[in-house]
Amino acid sequence: MQQQISVITLGIASLARSRAFYSRGFGWTPVFENDEIAFYQMNGFMLGTWVNPGLDGDMQRRSEQVPSAYCLAHNVADKADVEPAMQQLLEAGGTLLRKADAPPHGGFRGYVADPDGHAWEIAWNPAWAIDERGLVTFGV
Amino acid sequence: MQQQISVITLGIASLARSRAFYSRGFGWTPVFENDEIAFYQMNGFMLGTWVNPGLDGDMQRRSEQVPSAYCLAHNVADKADVEPAMQQLLEAGGTLLRKADAPPHGGFRGYVADPDGHAWEIAWNPAWAIDERGLVTFGV
Repeated sequence: MQQQISVITLGIASLARSRAFYSRGFGWTPVFENDEIAFYQMNGFMLGTWVNPGLDGDMQRRSEQVPSAYCLAHNVADKADVEPAMQQLLEAGGTLLRKADAPPHGGFRGYVADPDGHAWEIAWNPAWAIDERGLVTFGV
Repeated sequence: MQQQISVITLGIASLARSRAFYSRGFGWTPVFENDEIAFYQMNGFMLGTWVNPGLDGDMQRRSEQVPSAYCLAHNVADKADVEPAMQQLLEAGGTLLRKADAPPHGGFRGYVADPDGHAWEIAWNPAWAIDERGLVTFGV
């Protein structure tokens, strides 16, 4: 199968609260929204935010509102961009998980949870190229 | 901030078990792997699979091994590709969540969980274009 993910969908409690976080925190605009879902056009795929129980009903699995073992990362261009970006997310309703510091594998990063508890890493990783479309390529 | 996600990282219990699912089920090859993490080059971003407690330690948040409200989707080119793709994932160690059927919003889809419980939707969605690089564009 093509090495491709078409959508990442996050279950949310309130579309208005989630929309405010992503629009004010990240500055992102949905390409589509209705009463229960908003899609953001990302770098080659979609980010979906879907009010539950819509997503649970679609998956046919009841989810728990507890911290779960996965995270999404947004990379910034410069080390000095990490902390201001995290601050903007916190002011838009995010919760601090980890203050920015340098991991053993290099770069600089911190973590913020969105209003529904979905974890975001904000990272500067000089080894990974990001082109003007936001397409990220693995590098060492 | 650029409308960009650089990495989706999934916490896993065993790299060998996860690697077997992604290589035999999806047919994907890591671009990098060591003893605790494997990265797959996706369509404009990375998929990371990281043995816990590595990811939890990095996030500084202890995760629970329970179903959580998010999912990843892989889109296929034809409606007839959905069920064989799901079958291949089940044979590689996945668990069926929802047999494929037609959702109200159109297309055809089912859900399979990976060996660590991460939910995957396998979908045919004729409204969303996928180019030869796997880049997905929102369409209606």
